Amino acid sequence: RAGYDARVTSRNLAVIGGDGIGPEVVAEGLKVLQAVTPGSFSLTSYDLGAERWKRTGEVLPDSVLTELAAADGILFGAVGAAPGDKTMPSGILERGLILKIRFAFDHYVNLRPSRIYPGVPTPLADSVTAGKEVDFVVVREGTEGLYVGNGGVVRAGTPAEIATEVSVNTAYGVERVVRDAFARAARRRGKITLVHKHNVLVHAGGLWNRIFETVAAEYPDVTTDYLHIDAATIFMATDPARFDVIVTDNLFGDIITDLAGAVTGGIGLAASGNINPEGAFPSMFEPVHGSAPDIAGQGIADPTATILSVGLLLDHLGLAEEAGRIEKAVLADVSRRSAGTKRSTSEIGDAIASAV
Amino acid sequence: RAGYDARVTSRNLAVIGGDGIGPEVVAEGLKVLQAVTPGSFSLTSYDLGAERWKRTGEVLPDSVLTELAAADGILFGAVGAAPGDKTMPSGILERGLILKIRFAFDHYVNLRPSRIYPGVPTPLADSVTAGKEVDFVVVREGTEGLYVGNGGVVRAGTPAEIATEVSVNTAYGVERVVRDAFARAARRRGKITLVHKHNVLVHAGGLWNRIFETVAAEYPDVTTDYLHIDAATIFMATDPARFDVIVTDNLFGDIITDLAGAVTGGIGLAASGNINPEGAFPSMFEPVHGSAPDIAGQGIADPTATILSVGLLLDHLGLAEEAGRIEKAVLADVSRRSAGTKRSTSEIGDAIASAV
Ligand SMILES: CC(C)[C@H](C(=O)O)[C@@H](O)C(=O)O
Ligand SMILES: CC(C)[C@H](C(=O)O)[C@@H](O)C(=O)O
Repeated sequence: RAGYDARVTSRNLAVIGGDGIGPEVVAEGLKVLQAVTPGSFSLTSYDLGAERWKRTGEVLPDSVLTELAAADGILFGAVGAAPGDKTMPSGILERGLILKIRFAFDHYVNLRPSRIYPGVPTPLADSVTAGKEVDFVVVREGTEGLYVGNGGVVRAGTPAEIATEVSVNTAYGVERVVRDAFARAARRRGKITLVHKHNVLVHAGGLWNRIFETVAAEYPDVTTDYLHIDAATIFMATDPARFDVIVTDNLFGDIITDLAGAVTGGIGLAASGNINPEGAFPSMFEPVHGSAPDIAGQGIADPTATILSVGLLLDHLGLAEEAGRIEKAVLADVSRRSAGTKRSTSEIGDAIASAV
Repeated sequence: RAGYDARVTSRNLAVIGGDGIGPEVVAEGLKVLQAVTPGSFSLTSYDLGAERWKRTGEVLPDSVLTELAAADGILFGAVGAAPGDKTMPSGILERGLILKIRFAFDHYVNLRPSRIYPGVPTPLADSVTAGKEVDFVVVREGTEGLYVGNGGVVRAGTPAEIATEVSVNTAYGVERVVRDAFARAARRRGKITLVHKHNVLVHAGGLWNRIFETVAAEYPDVTTDYLHIDAATIFMATDPARFDVIVTDNLFGDIITDLAGAVTGGIGLAASGNINPEGAFPSMFEPVHGSAPDIAGQGIADPTATILSVGLLLDHLGLAEEAGRIEKAVLADVSRRSAGTKRSTSEIGDAIASAV
C-alpha cells in the first residue's frame, strides 16, 4: 500500500466506534471527513469492544483482523467498560484489541501532536504559557518496550508470587522510529528531545542513546536534547514550549502524551495516529482519550480529538491540503469556545464540518 | 536498630554531601538539625560522588558501605557530573551509589510528601488550586521493579542489538510497601490511590492489584482508588488535591514524584526518605532534586528540600516533636518568600534554623 495516489477517489476506511463515547465522537469525525472529502471514502463499520465481548466473548476475531488488513486506514473511537465493572478482566481489550492491532499492523510510529490553541484554557498558570507557542509532537515507539507482553507469573496468588515484565528493545525497532522522529524534526523547528531513563535502565537506555546519537550525526541542523522521563514531566508542567519533537519508548510515550494532553488543554483535544509509515499495513487513528462511560450517551463528549485524528489520517494518506483544512477549522472553532456556552457533541461536529 | 529511644542523646549521622549543590544544601540541613537537636547527633562525612569517582575511580567502597550500615541515619545531598560531561558513563553513580544504598539497606519505602504551601507559586493555574488543600504523600516501592538492574544486551553495538530490562515484582515486596501505605492513609485523611498500568503490564499489575485489594479489606475505613500511571499524570496537573496517599512501584513512583514536586512549587521543596521501616538498616534522607551543576558554587540553591528531609529523618528516629518544629518553621519561611527578594542558600538556612 506504499505510494498512495491522492487522485484515487475511493478508499476503504474501517471504522471501530467501540464503547462509551467512542461511537459518538467517531460519528462527528466521519461527518467532518465527509465534508472535506465528499464521496472519497467507503466505510465499513466493525462492532468491537467491551459490549461485543460481553455479548459474544470475542475480542478481535481473526476474520476481522484479516478484513482490517485490507482497509486503507482505520478510524478508532475508544473501548472499555465502566471502571468499576469487574466482569471485564483488565487488559482483555487493551491487549486483545488495541495493542493487537498496533502490533499486527506494525504501527511503530505512534504520533501524538500537542499544541496550545489560542484561547483554550489549560491547567497551567499564565506565567508558564503567556507569550509562548506550545506546539510539539511526540513520536512514541509503538511495537516494543514493556508493551510486548513478555512477562509472567510464578506461584500465582501465593505469598511467594513473582511477577515479571520484560521490556524488549531492538536496534531495528529503535532505529526506524528515531529516524522517523529526526525527519519530522528537520521538517519542523529542528529540535528533538530523547526521553528515557538511561541512568537506571542502562541496557535499553544505552541502545536508545547510541542510535539517537548515530542518527543525530546525519542531521547536523537538528538540535538534540536528552531528558530523563522524570525530568521530562517537570518540564511538561513548567515549560512545555521547550519541546518540538520528542522521541521515546512505548511506555514513556504513553505517560508523557497523557500529561501533554492535560497541560495543553485536555485530552478532549489530543489526537493520535498509529502509523506504519511504509504503508505495508493500514494505519489507525484514534483520540488519546478513553471511552468515558460516565458521560456516554449524553451527547456531551468533545469530538475534537477524533476530528483532529481524521486530519492525521488524511495527512498520512497524502491528502495534506484536506488535512490542513481540518486543522484550520478546528483552530478557528476552539478559539471561539468559551467556558460559558457548552455545545453538544454533534453541534461541535456540525460547526467544524461546515467550516472545512 | 528497631525501637529507637528518643532519650538517647547521641546518634550517628552519616553525611554524604555529594556533588554540585549537594554539599551546599546539606550544610544548611545540618545547621537546622543542630538548631533543633543541639548536640544530639555526631556526624561523619563521606566523600562520594562524581568528583571522587573522577579522582579515584571509586564509587562506593565496601568499607564505606560497612561504615554506613553502622550509622543511625544517612543524610544525602545529590550526586552527578554536569549533563554534558561524557567522561562519566551514565548510571555509574546512580546504580553504584544511590541505588546500591537503597538496595543494600532494604529501603523499601521511598517516602515522598508533597504539599502546596500557602503563598508558594506553582505552575498551575489558580482555577486548579484555589481554595483547595494539596497535601499528599507518595509511597514509592524502593527495592524492586525495573530498578533491580535485571536486564542485558545481546549483540551490543550492532544493527541486531537487543536490549532488555526486567521488572521484578514479588508478593513479599509489594505487600510490605502496600501495608505501609495503608497504615499511613489510616493515619492521614483515609484515602489511598494505587497507581500502576495493569491493563498493559498484566503480570505485575495483577500482583499489585491483588495485594492492594487484600490489604484494603483490612482497612474498611480507608477509601481506595486506582489510576493508570498515564491518567495519574493528568490528575496531578489538573486536580492534585484529590490525592492523599499514593502507592506505586519504583519507576512509576520516580516519575509521579518529580511531577508532584513540579506542580506543588518546584523540586526545590521536595523532600524524600528512603526508609527501612523496621530499622534493620539505617534509612537515608535526601532532596528529590539533583546536583544542579549549572548553579553549583554560587550559593543560590534552595536548601528547603534538604531541610525538610532532615525533618523526615527526625520523624523516622522517633523525634516527632522536633520534626514538627522543622515543618512549621519551613511553612512560615516559605509563605513569607516573595518573587522579588532572592535569599542565598545560607540565608534561607539561617532563617529556618533560627525559627525552629
Ligand atoms: C488503552 C491503552 C492500552 C493505551 C496505551 O497504553 O497505549 C492508551 O493508554 C493509549 O495511550 O493509547
Ligand atoms: C538518580 C536516580 C537513580 C533517582 C531514581 O530514579 O530513583 C532519582 O531520579 C530519584 O528520584 O531519586
